Order: sequence, then C-alpha cells, then structure tokens
Amino acid sequence: MDKKTLEGHIRTRRSCLCVGLDSDPAKLPAGVDLLTFNKVIIDATRPYCVAYKPNLAFYEVLGPKGWEILQETVAYIGTDHFTIADAKRGDIGNTSLYYARTFFDTYGFDSVTVAPYMGRDSVEPFLTQEGKWAIVLALTSNSGAFDFETLSAEGKPLFQHVLEKTASWGTPENTMFVVGATRAELLTEIRRLVPNHFLLVPGVGAQGGSLEEVMKHGMNEGVGLLINASRSILYASSGPDFAEAAAREAHAMQQAMGAFIA
Amino acid sequence: MDKKTLEGHIRTRRSCLCVGLDSDPAKLPAGVDLLTFNKVIIDATRPYCVAYKPNLAFYEVLGPKGWEILQETVAYIGTDHFTIADAKRGDIGNTSLYYARTFFDTYGFDSVTVAPYMGRDSVEPFLTQEGKWAIVLALTSNSGAFDFETLSAEGKPLFQHVLEKTASWGTPENTMFVVGATRAELLTEIRRLVPNHFLLVPGVGAQGGSLEEVMKHGMNEGVGLLINASRSILYASSGPDFAEAAAREAHAMQQAMGAFIA
Repeated sequence: MDKKTLEGHIRTRRSCLCVGLDSDPAKLPAGVDLLTFNKVIIDATRPYCVAYKPNLAFYEVLGPKGWEILQETVAYIGTDHFTIADAKRGDIGNTSLYYARTFFDTYGFDSVTVAPYMGRDSVEPFLTQEGKWAIVLALTSNSGAFDFETLSAEGKPLFQHVLEKTASWGTPENTMFVVGATRAELLTEIRRLVPNHFLLVPGVGAQGGSLEEVMKHGMNEGVGLLINASRSILYASSGPDFAEAAAREAHAMQQAMGAFIA
Repeated sequence: MDKKTLEGHIRTRRSCLCVGLDSDPAKLPAGVDLLTFNKVIIDATRPYCVAYKPNLAFYEVLGPKGWEILQETVAYIGTDHFTIADAKRGDIGNTSLYYARTFFDTYGFDSVTVAPYMGRDSVEPFLTQEGKWAIVLALTSNSGAFDFETLSAEGKPLFQHVLEKTASWGTPENTMFVVGATRAELLTEIRRLVPNHFLLVPGVGAQGGSLEEVMKHGMNEGVGLLINASRSILYASSGPDFAEAAAREAHAMQQAMGAFIA
C-alpha cells in the first residue's frame, strides 16, 4: 500500500489506529481458536482502524501451524488495511533480502519492523519494492530503551543517529519509524528530525502512553501516525462478548483520534 | 547443551567449527530438495564440527513448509552438536519470552542469536533456561557494522557498551557474543572485555576473514570460539559431488583449527 492510499484511509475513517494482533494462545476466550479469534477481532474493528499488526512471536511459538494461521490472517485482512509484520528482522544484506521476500512476497505484508543495529545493508533490502515499507526501530516503549537507544554518541542519542541515517537511505514513501508512546515528550523533537515520515507508535493503552499527547506532538500534515493498541482491544473482555468489547474499545480510540483529524 | 559439554566436544574433535546451514533454495544441486541437502551436508560434516547454525531467513521464505524443514533439520542434527537458531530476534520482554519459547521449546535449539538494540528486557527472557543460550550481536561482519555498532558513545564504541552491559545481565554459561572475523584486529580487545564468554565468529571463508587470525587473537582457555562457515562448505561444489566437497572443506578447516587446540 502506498503512502497516498494509507493517508486516504486515515482521512476517510478519521482514524490512525493500528490493531496489534498479539493474539496470545494462552489468553483466548474459552472455546475460541486463534484463527477464529483473529477473524472476529478483525471484523469487529475494521471500521475503526487503518492497520493491523500481527506480532510474529505469538505465531512462531506454535510451530509451522502458527505460520499457516498467520497466512490466513493476512489474507482475511484484505487490501483495505495496511498490514505490518511485527518481526523485528535485520541481518547482513544477503539474509535481509530473504526476510524481505518472506514478508512481502510469501506472506503479502505491506511492511516489516526492522532492527537497525547491523546498519545500512541490513535495512536496504526492505526498501526496494514499490508500496512496501521498512518500519525501523528508533525509540521503543520498553524499559530497555534506556540501555542503548538513548546513549549519547558524538553529541546526540543513538536513536537520533538511527533516525537521521536511516531516513537518508530511503524516503518517506518506504520508511517509517517506531517511536514509543511512553516517550511522547520527545515526539516534538523527533518530528523536527523526520517531518514527513510516518511514525508507528506502540505503548498507548496497556503500556500507559497517552493517545492525546501522541496526537498533539506527533501529527504532521498527512497525520503521519499509526498508533497501535493490542492488549487493550484484544482482551477488552475475556468473556463471550469479546468482539463487542473490542469494537467498543477500538471505536472509542477512533473517536479520540477523530477529534484531531479534520 | 551446557558449556562443559560444548567444551568437551571442542577438545575431543579438535574443532570449533560451526557449519552455517544458509541453505539457499536457489543454489541447491540439481534434483536435490532442501531437507535432503541439509541431511547430506550434516552427515558429511559431523566429524569435523561442533555446531550447526541454520539461518532462519532461508527457511522462512518458503512459508510454513520451510519451518517443517527446519524442524526436521534440527531433529536430524541430534544432541551431539550445539544448535544455533540464527534468527536475530529481540523485542519487548513479554514478546521476547515467546521467541525464547519458540526456539528453545517448540524447535529444540540450544541457542538463538539476539539483537541488542531494545536493551535488557529484550535479552533476559533468553537467559532463563539451563543449557540454553542467547548469542548477542556485538560487532558484526557486514559493511553496515560501521553505521551504528562502532559509534563512539560516552568514550567507547557502542559494541563495547553492548558487550559490557549484556555480560552483566547473564553469565558465560548462558550468553555468547557475535564478533565478525572481518574484525579480527579487535578480538584481542574484545577478549579483554569478555575473557570467559564464547564468541560466535562469522565471516571466515566467503566473507574473507582469516581463520588463523581469529584463533590466535580470539581463543581463551576453553577455546571459547565457534567459528562459522556457511557458503564455503555448503557450495564447495555445485555438482553431484557436493557432499564430498563439503566434507573436504570442513575437514580442512578442522585441521587448521586442530593445530591451535591442544
């Protein structure tokens, strides 16, 4: 999906919500299998979101069968929503090329999250197909973000090096950045560094980030944000009303976002 | 596999060779399928190596079927060799936990390569099972290593922060580090920082690193090295004699290593 189409969906639905399909086999409502759970959640949230982000770990742990479920989930999402393989891949160039093929061609995702540690040749293979995206980790929402990402290197934090260098390898048409909502106070500064790039923002909801703060400090002209919520939507209820509860939660987030989107 | 057992294999076989199963579907000899190729390579190289390292990208690209081949490959290797899932995983703690379960429990690997960018909670879930290992990226063998890994942060390169901090989260019984053979001149310094840890060293062979330099500068008392070769063994011949050629190449590397191992 290209940038213009994604921006169109955001304007039409007045939403920049990404639903994180961190579908934990241990947390499913009684009697519901993983694929059914995903399909029900997708149907319940479609009108309120513009993107879906399966978290690969929850599928990989199931063995080969998990990848079949992932494949069917991506197919079920269809082409009206942006799809993100939250896979955090990244390896030497020759290997990253195969990861890009895996997620773009074998599974049909629009984008993959990419870990920047190994540098340019580990990122570039994700930037070669039109309408396909690398979403590069910059400043994440977890406690470990302070171990390396914020280290001061040659006068600025490591994540700023990642933003600046990675932005120079691609364009706002094929590169996004992960910036945690729990770091909303830094969004203004990050927007100055990458004014035109989409930011994927996890950490709203269960992790405690504020949606309003993110919208206020993170938006650009084309909105430029995908704000992810996973657990707060998926497990809004653990009972048989989980679909209605997920829809209600997604709708509430859409309404809060809609207030900022003209 | 615990450290003592691995060190025993190294002494007995006078080898610290790791055979990288970067089995590229596009490079297989005519008429040989991927699983058969792996089995033949494993049988040809067993006496000369102590570890096998499937590169996940080459299996993931095949879809769910690739994971079945991976599963059968790991089972075929058995328990006399150390197994490494070269997967470069790493995510927030809750997600890394599922990656650890994936590779340790679902697939039965001894170890997983881990990207350190997201910090402590992304690494620790790989350090909780006895005889299981995180192999953390420190200084890699690719050209992109100079983009971030060698940035000077607070007086020392980023990879040194990674070595020091990560070493403090685990022990030499559950943590190894990736250090590229193409950086052999830095091995002496790295040995000073982590004297007791195993180092996984890619980049000998096709990528141009010198085996002798790595042995000379990287060894510690228990050898403490796993030196990986992939393409130079797997594709030593593209003809019907690929097994003999692989055995010959692995044997030659074992002989070169054996000269250093008492």
